[in-house]
Amino acid sequence: MSYEILEKTFYRLAQLDHAGAMLGWDQAVMMPPGGNESRGRALAELQVMTTEILQDPALQDHMQRALADAASLPPWQQANLREMVNDIKSANAIPKELVEATVLATNECEHAWRSLRPANDWPTFEPMLTKVVDLTRETAQLRRAALADEKGLVSDYEALVDIYDPGTRLAVIDPVFDRLKAELPTLLQEITARQSRAPAPLQPQTSIDKHRQIALARELMSILGFDFDRGRLDETAHPFSGGVSDDSRVTSRYDESNVFEGIMAIVHETGHSRYESGLNPVWRYKPVGGSMGMGVHESQSLFFEMQIGRSRPFVDAIAPIIRRYFGSDPAFSPDNLYASYTRVAPGLIRVNADEVTYPLHVIARYEIERDLINGDVTVADIPELWNAAMSRYLGLDTRDNHQDGAMQDIHWPSGAIGYFPSYTLGAINAAQLYRAMLRDIPDVNGCIGNLTLTPIFEWLSERVWRHGRLYSYDELMTRATGETLNADHFLNHLQARYLGNETSG
Amino acid sequence: MSYEILEKTFYRLAQLDHAGAMLGWDQAVMMPPGGNESRGRALAELQVMTTEILQDPALQDHMQRALADAASLPPWQQANLREMVNDIKSANAIPKELVEATVLATNECEHAWRSLRPANDWPTFEPMLTKVVDLTRETAQLRRAALADEKGLVSDYEALVDIYDPGTRLAVIDPVFDRLKAELPTLLQEITARQSRAPAPLQPQTSIDKHRQIALARELMSILGFDFDRGRLDETAHPFSGGVSDDSRVTSRYDESNVFEGIMAIVHETGHSRYESGLNPVWRYKPVGGSMGMGVHESQSLFFEMQIGRSRPFVDAIAPIIRRYFGSDPAFSPDNLYASYTRVAPGLIRVNADEVTYPLHVIARYEIERDLINGDVTVADIPELWNAAMSRYLGLDTRDNHQDGAMQDIHWPSGAIGYFPSYTLGAINAAQLYRAMLRDIPDVNGCIGNLTLTPIFEWLSERVWRHGRLYSYDELMTRATGETLNADHFLNHLQARYLGNETSG
Repeated sequence: MSYEILEKTFYRLAQLDHAGAMLGWDQAVMMPPGGNESRGRALAELQVMTTEILQDPALQDHMQRALADAASLPPWQQANLREMVNDIKSANAIPKELVEATVLATNECEHAWRSLRPANDWPTFEPMLTKVVDLTRETAQLRRAALADEKGLVSDYEALVDIYDPGTRLAVIDPVFDRLKAELPTLLQEITARQSRAPAPLQPQTSIDKHRQIALARELMSILGFDFDRGRLDETAHPFSGGVSDDSRVTSRYDESNVFEGIMAIVHETGHSRYESGLNPVWRYKPVGGSMGMGVHESQSLFFEMQIGRSRPFVDAIAPIIRRYFGSDPAFSPDNLYASYTRVAPGLIRVNADEVTYPLHVIARYEIERDLINGDVTVADIPELWNAAMSRYLGLDTRDNHQDGAMQDIHWPSGAIGYFPSYTLGAINAAQLYRAMLRDIPDVNGCIGNLTLTPIFEWLSERVWRHGRLYSYDELMTRATGETLNADHFLNHLQARYLGNETSG
Repeated sequence: MSYEILEKTFYRLAQLDHAGAMLGWDQAVMMPPGGNESRGRALAELQVMTTEILQDPALQDHMQRALADAASLPPWQQANLREMVNDIKSANAIPKELVEATVLATNECEHAWRSLRPANDWPTFEPMLTKVVDLTRETAQLRRAALADEKGLVSDYEALVDIYDPGTRLAVIDPVFDRLKAELPTLLQEITARQSRAPAPLQPQTSIDKHRQIALARELMSILGFDFDRGRLDETAHPFSGGVSDDSRVTSRYDESNVFEGIMAIVHETGHSRYESGLNPVWRYKPVGGSMGMGVHESQSLFFEMQIGRSRPFVDAIAPIIRRYFGSDPAFSPDNLYASYTRVAPGLIRVNADEVTYPLHVIARYEIERDLINGDVTVADIPELWNAAMSRYLGLDTRDNHQDGAMQDIHWPSGAIGYFPSYTLGAINAAQLYRAMLRDIPDVNGCIGNLTLTPIFEWLSERVWRHGRLYSYDELMTRATGETLNADHFLNHLQARYLGNETSG
C-alpha cells in the first residue's frame, strides 16, 4: 500500500518532469528573449513543487513502511523502490530555499552567458558564476552530509558527481584519469606525427546551404533509427537531446562553411535520443524506467558517434549520401571524409575536440571544478587555471580568450558542476561495449558498412536501453560486457584507429 | 497574513498555468503525433494539481480569514481577493469525480468528433454528445447552486456563461440578441442586394508562396505593435493566440490559393495578443492582473479585425504593403481588397462568416445550448433545431448536412457550452469602444490611414488592457465608454460600413 502511494507520487513527479523538460527545450529553441523572466519563474516553481512533494513528511513515512515490506516486492519494484528512496533522500538533503535560489541564479547566469560568451566578457560573467558556484558548493556540502554514510561519499565534489552519475566514485575516476593523463599526451604526439605525414584533409570549396544540411541530418537520423513521429529536430546554439521518451527533441547547429562536425553532432545526439526512446515503456513514469547516469548516457551517444559514426565502414557508407545532398566536391570522397573524421589536433574547444584530446579537456575541467567545490580555488582563479591546464595537457595558450576558454561550456553557468567526468567515462564505456558486442555480432563492421544497423540497436537495447535503472552502474556494465569499467578498451580503440591500419579502409 | 498566503498560492497556480499554456501551444504547433499520450497525461496531471490546490480545506480557511479582513486592503487587493474567492468557490462547487468524468467524456467525444464530423456521422456522435451535455448540465446545476446567492444566477445555463464571461447575465444578453434577431435579417437582405449590383471581388490569379505570406504577416504584426522579442508567430491548422503575457504565441495558417482571410486572421489574433501583453505587469501572476472574460477578449481581437483591419483606411494603407510582398495582381488593388474584406453572404460555416451574419450563427447556437442545459430540449432534437434556425436566420437548408451544421464546432464536443455568446458580445463591445475612442481621438481614421496606431493602442491600454480584472465587466465598459453594453453602436457600425458611403474610400 505504501509502495503504491510512492508510485503514485512519482507518477506526478514524472509529469512535472515532462513539463520541465519541454519548457526547458522551448526556452533553448523557441522562446523569445522577453519570455525569459516568466519562464525562469515557472521552471523554478515546478522545481519547488517537486522538492515539496519529495520533502513531504508523509512521503517519508510511506517510504519507511515500503522499505519494511520491500522483501515481498518483485525485483523490479525493489529496484524502483531503491530509486525512489534515493530521490527522496537526495531531495531532503537540500532545503527548498536553496533549490529555488539555485534555479534563479543558474537561469540568470545561463541566459547572460548566451550573450557574454560571444562578447568575451569574463568580468561581467565572473560574479554571476560565483553566485552559481557558491550555491552549488552549499548543495554539495549538504548532500554529502546527508548521504555520506549510505553512499560512502568522501568529498563535497563527489556528492555532485553522484548526482549526474549515481554510483560513480572518485576512487574509480582518479586512477582512470591519471592513466589517461599519463598515456594520452604521448599517444597524441605519435598520432599527430603520423598524421602530419599525410596531407591535411580538404574542406569543401563552397559553403553548404543550411537547409541541405538539415535534410541530410534528417536522413542520417532515420538511418540511425530516429522516429520522426516521436521526435523533432530543431536548431540551437548548442546541440542537445531533450524532451521525453515518447517525444524526443534533438537539436543541432549548422555551420555553412564547416559541415563535417554538424554531421557527427547529429549522430551523437541521436545516440542520446535512441537510449531515452528505447527505455522500457512498461516502466514509463517510474524511476526504475528512467535512464541511468550521464556516463551511461554518454556511452550511448559516443557509441553512436565514435564506434559507429567515425568508423571507416560508416564513413564509406554515408559518403554517397552526403554527396547526394552536398554535391561531388572532392572533400566528400570517402578517404577525405574519413581523414577529416579521424583528424587529431589539439584545439581550444571541447565540443570540437577529437576523441584523443577530448579526455584531456574533460580532465582539465574536472580538476578545476573539483577544486572549486572543495574550496581550494575560486571563480576568479579560473582563467589562470584554465590556461595552465590547456598549456600542460594540450600545449595551447588561452590567455584573454575567455570565449574559447572557460566560458565555452554551458555546464558551469547552468549549475551542472560534476557532470564533465561523465563524457570520458562514457567514451570508455562505449569502447568497452563495442568490444563486448563483437563477441555476439562478429560482423559488426559489415552491419555498419551495409547500414544494416538493426542488430546493433537490438544488442544495445537488450544490454542497456531496456533495463532503465534496474541495475546499479557496475552491474549493468558487468551484465553487458562481463566486467566493470576498464580503460584498456578505450586506449586499445585509439591505438587501433589512429596507429593501426584501420585508415587503409 | 491570510491574504498573503492566498496570493502565494495563486502565484503557484499562475506558474502551473504558464506550464499548461506552453505545453498546449507546443501540442498544437510543435509536438510530433507520438508525443500525444504523454502530453495528455502531463496536462491532465497539471490540471489535477490545480484543482487539488484550490480544493485544499486550509485554503478555504485562509479565504474566510482574508474576507474578514478585506476592508483593510487597498482596492486592487480587494479586487484580487474577489477574483481569488471566485476561483476557489468555483473549484469547490464541482466534486472532483464530476471533473474527472467530464474530462473523460469530453476527451472521448472530441476525439471521436475529429473523424465523425468529416464522415457526417450524427447517429454515432449523438450519444457521446448526450453524455457531455448531461455531465455539463450537472456542473451547471452545482455551480448555480453554489454561487446563485452571491452571483444572482437565475438559470443553470447562466452559471455556464459566467465561466467564460464572468458577470455577464442572460438579462443583458437576451434583449440584445432579440434586437439583433429582429434587425440583422433585414439588414442582411439590404446589404446583399446592394453588393449584388457590384461585380464579385477578384481573387489573385496565382497562388502566393507561404513564406511570402509569413513575411507579410510579420510586418503587419509589427505595425500592430506586436513585439517579436516577447512573442512568436508559428503555423497551425487553426489560428490562435496563446502563451503568456510576456511570451505571446500567435499562430496562423496560410492558404496559398486564398490569401485574404489569412491576413485578417493575423490581425484578429494580434488583437488577442496585444490585450494579454498589455495587462498591467505590476499585477503579473495575480488573478486581478489577468484578462477579463472571453467577451472582453473578443472585443479586442474584433476591434483589431473589424474596427481597424477591415476599415477602408487600413485596407488602403496596407494595400501597397501587400503588393510589395505579393506582387501587383489586380486583386490587391485597394478597391478590390476592400470589397473582399467587406463581402457579406449567408454561409453554413460560422468561422468563415462575415460580421453581419456572424451574430446569427451565434444566436442559433445560444438558443440551442441554453435550452439543452435548462432541460427544454435534448441532443436528439439538435439537427431539427439547427435546420430551423439556419433557415429562419440565414435562409439556409442544413438538413442531413451535419458536418456543416451542428457538428461544425469544437465547442460542444469539448464541453465548452456557454462560450458562444462571447463572440457577439465582443463584436458589440468593439463597436462601442470605437465610438468612445472617437470622442478622445477624433481623427482615428487618419491614424489608421497613416498606420500611426500608437494613440489607438494607448487608448485601449488605458481604458481596457491595463485594468486586468480590477473592475466588473459593466464597470470596465462604463469607465471605457460611458455606458454598459449597447448594441446601437454595432448596428450603426454595420449600417455605416455596409449601407453608408465608407465603400467610396
